[in-house]
Amino acid sequence: MSEKLRILWINPVGTERDDHNIRNILNSIKRPDVEVDVTHLRRGPVHLEYHFYEHIVLDEVLRLIRKAEQNEYDAVVIGCFYDPGLREARELVKIPIVALAETCMHVAATLGHKFSVIVGRKKSIPKMEDNVYLYGLEKKLASFRSIDFTVIKMATERKELEEVIYQQSEKAIKKDGAEVIVLGCAVASGFAEALMSRLKVPVVDPVMVSFKYAELLADLYVKIGLSHSKVYGYEPPPKEEGWLADPPMG
Amino acid sequence: MSEKLRILWINPVGTERDDHNIRNILNSIKRPDVEVDVTHLRRGPVHLEYHFYEHIVLDEVLRLIRKAEQNEYDAVVIGCFYDPGLREARELVKIPIVALAETCMHVAATLGHKFSVIVGRKKSIPKMEDNVYLYGLEKKLASFRSIDFTVIKMATERKELEEVIYQQSEKAIKKDGAEVIVLGCAVASGFAEALMSRLKVPVVDPVMVSFKYAELLADLYVKIGLSHSKVYGYEPPPKEEGWLADPPMG
Amino acid sequence: MSEKLRILWINPVGTERDDHNIRNILNSIKRPDVEVDVTHLRRGPVHLEYHFYEHIVLDEVLRLIRKAEQNEYDAVVIGCFYDPGLREARELVKIPIVALAETCMHVAATLGHKFSVIVGRKKSIPKMEDNVYLYGLEKKLASFRSIDFTVIKMATERKELEEVIYQQSEKAIKKDGAEVIVLGCAVASGFAEALMSRLKVPVVDPVMVSFKYAELLADLYVKIGLSHSKVYGYEPPPKEEGWLADPPMG
Amino acid sequence: MSEKLRILWINPVGTERDDHNIRNILNSIKRPDVEVDVTHLRRGPVHLEYHFYEHIVLDEVLRLIRKAEQNEYDAVVIGCFYDPGLREARELVKIPIVALAETCMHVAATLGHKFSVIVGRKKSIPKMEDNVYLYGLEKKLASFRSIDFTVIKMATERKELEEVIYQQSEKAIKKDGAEVIVLGCAVASGFAEALMSRLKVPVVDPVMVSFKYAELLADLYVKIGLSHSKVYGYEPPPKEEGWLADPPMG
Amino acid sequence: MSEKLRILWINPVGTERDDHNIRNILNSIKRPDVEVDVTHLRRGPVHLEYHFYEHIVLDEVLRLIRKAEQNEYDAVVIGCFYDPGLREARELVKIPIVALAETCMHVAATLGHKFSVIVGRKKSIPKMEDNVYLYGLEKKLASFRSIDFTVIKMATERKELEEVIYQQSEKAIKKDGAEVIVLGCAVASGFAEALMSRLKVPVVDPVMVSFKYAELLADLYVKIGLSHSKVYGYEPPPKEEGWLADPPMG
Amino acid sequence: MSEKLRILWINPVGTERDDHNIRNILNSIKRPDVEVDVTHLRRGPVHLEYHFYEHIVLDEVLRLIRKAEQNEYDAVVIGCFYDPGLREARELVKIPIVALAETCMHVAATLGHKFSVIVGRKKSIPKMEDNVYLYGLEKKLASFRSIDFTVIKMATERKELEEVIYQQSEKAIKKDGAEVIVLGCAVASGFAEALMSRLKVPVVDPVMVSFKYAELLADLYVKIGLSHSKVYGYEPPPKEEGWLADPPMG
Repeated sequence: MSEKLRILWINPVGTERDDHNIRNILNSIKRPDVEVDVTHLRRGPVHLEYHFYEHIVLDEVLRLIRKAEQNEYDAVVIGCFYDPGLREARELVKIPIVALAETCMHVAATLGHKFSVIVGRKKSIPKMEDNVYLYGLEKKLASFRSIDFTVIKMATERKELEEVIYQQSEKAIKKDGAEVIVLGCAVASGFAEALMSRLKVPVVDPVMVSFKYAELLADLYVKIGLSHSKVYGYEPPPKEEGWLADPPMG
Repeated sequence: MSEKLRILWINPVGTERDDHNIRNILNSIKRPDVEVDVTHLRRGPVHLEYHFYEHIVLDEVLRLIRKAEQNEYDAVVIGCFYDPGLREARELVKIPIVALAETCMHVAATLGHKFSVIVGRKKSIPKMEDNVYLYGLEKKLASFRSIDFTVIKMATERKELEEVIYQQSEKAIKKDGAEVIVLGCAVASGFAEALMSRLKVPVVDPVMVSFKYAELLADLYVKIGLSHSKVYGYEPPPKEEGWLADPPMG
Repeated sequence: MSEKLRILWINPVGTERDDHNIRNILNSIKRPDVEVDVTHLRRGPVHLEYHFYEHIVLDEVLRLIRKAEQNEYDAVVIGCFYDPGLREARELVKIPIVALAETCMHVAATLGHKFSVIVGRKKSIPKMEDNVYLYGLEKKLASFRSIDFTVIKMATERKELEEVIYQQSEKAIKKDGAEVIVLGCAVASGFAEALMSRLKVPVVDPVMVSFKYAELLADLYVKIGLSHSKVYGYEPPPKEEGWLADPPMG
Repeated sequence: MSEKLRILWINPVGTERDDHNIRNILNSIKRPDVEVDVTHLRRGPVHLEYHFYEHIVLDEVLRLIRKAEQNEYDAVVIGCFYDPGLREARELVKIPIVALAETCMHVAATLGHKFSVIVGRKKSIPKMEDNVYLYGLEKKLASFRSIDFTVIKMATERKELEEVIYQQSEKAIKKDGAEVIVLGCAVASGFAEALMSRLKVPVVDPVMVSFKYAELLADLYVKIGLSHSKVYGYEPPPKEEGWLADPPMG
Repeated sequence: MSEKLRILWINPVGTERDDHNIRNILNSIKRPDVEVDVTHLRRGPVHLEYHFYEHIVLDEVLRLIRKAEQNEYDAVVIGCFYDPGLREARELVKIPIVALAETCMHVAATLGHKFSVIVGRKKSIPKMEDNVYLYGLEKKLASFRSIDFTVIKMATERKELEEVIYQQSEKAIKKDGAEVIVLGCAVASGFAEALMSRLKVPVVDPVMVSFKYAELLADLYVKIGLSHSKVYGYEPPPKEEGWLADPPMG
Repeated sequence: MSEKLRILWINPVGTERDDHNIRNILNSIKRPDVEVDVTHLRRGPVHLEYHFYEHIVLDEVLRLIRKAEQNEYDAVVIGCFYDPGLREARELVKIPIVALAETCMHVAATLGHKFSVIVGRKKSIPKMEDNVYLYGLEKKLASFRSIDFTVIKMATERKELEEVIYQQSEKAIKKDGAEVIVLGCAVASGFAEALMSRLKVPVVDPVMVSFKYAELLADLYVKIGLSHSKVYGYEPPPKEEGWLADPPMG
């Protein structure tokens, strides 16, 4: 136990754009006894606004996750608020797999009566609302509110981004009864403290909170072996069928 | 309108095993003015019991669906009760995409107070139950009941298969209050009439019912242009981003 | 199977007002191998905006349905979005009974994340919302929106009708997040194509969609005997009690 | 206010079979300042186990209710656990209309964490469970349990009836976690005290509890005018349309 | 049974402020055969807007309730719309314990499709909404609407109070679809009749309705022994553990 | 930030019985940079099986929590699976307050499709199930299962305790479809690893998991000021009303 916990953060996009920022955020909040690596994909879209994009990045994401387990990482975070591949990843490996929306919404549920999620575009709401149902949290959801920003715009117009998040958050609090704000995109990370001091309610930064949750699970995994269940839903495919070693897509 | 409606049925597995049987079933129940093609994948697992397998077949399934739209099919059925790739497919094309579980459970909901789904193994229940939530039908679900058969076993031990489905269905009716039985696997198709005469309740054959539903949607698509929505959730990725033409995995 | 499927459409009102229009719509979208008859009641209100009116037309509706079964129709549609008498009708006969709201809302649920229902007056919402609960679809409902038109006004001011439906539909899409629009009254039929080209989302025409669903069920009923369950909820009254032959009200 | 509150109890069946027993029960528990009349139908089935029977008795039930209002009754109880005609009756009159299931299940909800309903036959469960949904009480329902007795059998084999109710109630408490038992049929009235002393949990007698609730509403109606809402759902049909005076069924 | 039913109304605050008003209201609507006592606490906050205040008054409230049982009261009403101590009180005594929110919302549910609750401040909504969930009534709730009045302001600015309740109620009816209004604070009692004549919908006065419900339960308790369940959730602490006689707080 | 995080664990009972065991468990799993103090009450029941007992210990629990904030603890855990006083405590202080059931059930929800909670006696289920509703997690709950052990028996018959937990857990997995087991009492802590190796599913130890969650929140509280919301539900009572300094109970 004198060794450090090792966590891998995957930005599931084909660009290094976010790595530097996220690495800084993680280093600013990680435990002293934790080591984090941030990585991105060799090739793929620079955002995951479309479900087809989630699909096409999943090959490499799953390959990275399986390799992470072999390389003895103690947990992996899939750094997108759509939680792409969560079910498939947990089927394939034993180490804890942490997803942003699942984690942040459960934590938000413990911080107040109801939370609102601020999302980039209305396009995202149907799948994200489906995830709220699947995670069992619809009763804790005050609302989704869209800022009408693409991921690209979020990544480049940072000042405007903070302002529109503030405006929609205020509406969520005043009109929808939200007591907690969840920022629904990894690219929206970095404003939590500033927003909290303006809004006077807790703001769940998806990068910070999901990473701390990864630390929690990595720690319990190393110390007592706790991780996601492997019966029923996450039962892994048998090696002898061969598809783990040689999936059809190359 | 004098032309026939053309529907493509995809068996999303790397085997021709089921094609013959399903083609026969479809020909026995299709409308006279409908033409159906049954196809399978060039390469892939021979069953989709694992979520990872669903993932690895999706590339070819989506390619077949996009090609079907170019080739002027009027609807496509994805022939697996997990409904793999439904969200992604509807994002990519305009023609109606029909999925087995979604269709059969909605139809079952119109045939009685509650339905039970007979599944191969307990492994399937978590994702299928999640689908019940997403389709909004939990109130109409009496139960899932597992017959403890792999897909392979279902495909080969047909006589035993019919018997265990009968037994679990009877329990679903007597103990769980089911008024309707849904067979939760395309490979379990072919027994509906026999089971109905023994059980005295409607039995939803996933191949028959989903195909008739595909006829319904194909017809309305051709006649008045009705298909799934393309705003919000199914908004398609823009061509100019290039990933439609050249996805990273192949 | 060389014979045509025969479907009866009942306008459950004491007026021939809607028969011509609905007959035209049905003939424009029916399968070539289907024969449809449209009928109305000998005596009764000219609309069913009140639950008492639903009650007083039910005698004749049920008599027509029982006669339809004797006359070997393969399915009957009860042409009102309140779905009056659905439970009673299914108790009395074996042939498929199709109701507008049940059918259209289940189909709408397969076309997008959430649907909104455009209704004539707020008066209708409580019972229709109750039906959404009973059909198990509340999670798929974005909203009800009232156009504040009586049925009479709907039947006569057609141009204004289309316009107010358009306006409320647009609000449902923009404000309530609807991806699909359902027209909540048989008298509102006939605008689906025009509305779809303006709204850019699927519009479920209650006459067209319920009729295609009746074709689907009639077909499966004739081919494999599938219809609603007759155990538990729809168990029929025993003949020997005499009330089927001689009910007290006439 | 020195006058007595007047309540009408309708046994919605074509037999005087239950009148005597129910009159006795009501007299044993009514307030001293309340006057109760018990009546039955001139013609109709002797039980309402079928939805068609509910329909065919409704004409006379509604006529009795409208006449009760004219005759200045302060409330009416419709004495059947299916709550037939509740929506229609409240549309037609202003005086409080009390239904057995609605009342007993709401009261049961205030007496413990969850209640179970003991019903005659499984036939009843679908509609009664639908009513649980409509009344918004599914979270308080532990289970339905059937004693497999027809109404006729309940009315004649009283000793056996009490025993099977006891047995199913005990199972409901032990296995389903019920803290309260609701007797789901007016004909099962009269055993509450005996059952309570054996079961050691509250037993909601449908006749007693619904009648006391009718007293409550009658009292508030007379004193401050409180009754069911007349906006939206219960908005009454306009007299000038003529159907109130002359409904089509004779 | 010739004796009067005796009911205790507890204003769970350390002020006699409301006693006179509530006593008047109760005397104006109580049954002739009922006797009511109104009491308040010796020491405590003059309102319960904070959960901590609910906690600190509970000692004396529970002591009063236990003494009421010893003094042969037939029911007790805890006169606050937060329903403080309901679970604890029912654990300690056998006589019926009536709470305002539980009672008024169940009664409101029997008066229309949906009700709205008018509350003093948004502060109250989370706990009150939690109570709606616990009572199983979320489907019947149209909305909470806040008038932004403290309890103190409610108690002193009566004219303004009536006006803002009217305004928010009207919005609840027009915008939220409420068919019934529930006044969510004992201090807001006294306006029901005036509001009903302006709003044209039933208005549930929390003092009147909960007291009539207490009469109902007291009556059934005295006549047949019906009260809340004492198995599972309300199982009482054993005397021999000593804490009933000598709780740690003095 | 070089200082240690300081967490207070309160055993809300009037006995030191559990302190030693829990201190050992916490020391075995805590982060190296965390300091934990374990305390119990000066006077109070030795278990909290009754809601009245929860009430009577709350004075001292809340006093300890307020003092903990003054003494600059960074988080407090209330060590009972009923989560007593959570709402009141969060109203009074700003530092994170961690409760066992809330935390463990949210974490369990991220480890599998559904979890079962093993409780001491059926007495506990109603309130705990209410908490499942309030936390919004009913969809993730497979079942509660009782081992029929009092807390005293749990504390003394440790070998039998482990065995009955194992047996009920196995039933929860096999019969109820649980993928994760939650131990529903702090006194049941200490068996998680042994049970995991026998059951082959994740077992959530309430002491371990809630404490790791307290570390997570304490860390984020110190680093970025994240804690529960102070608007609406947890808005604190104003000092000037005086009750914080001088509550009525002594």
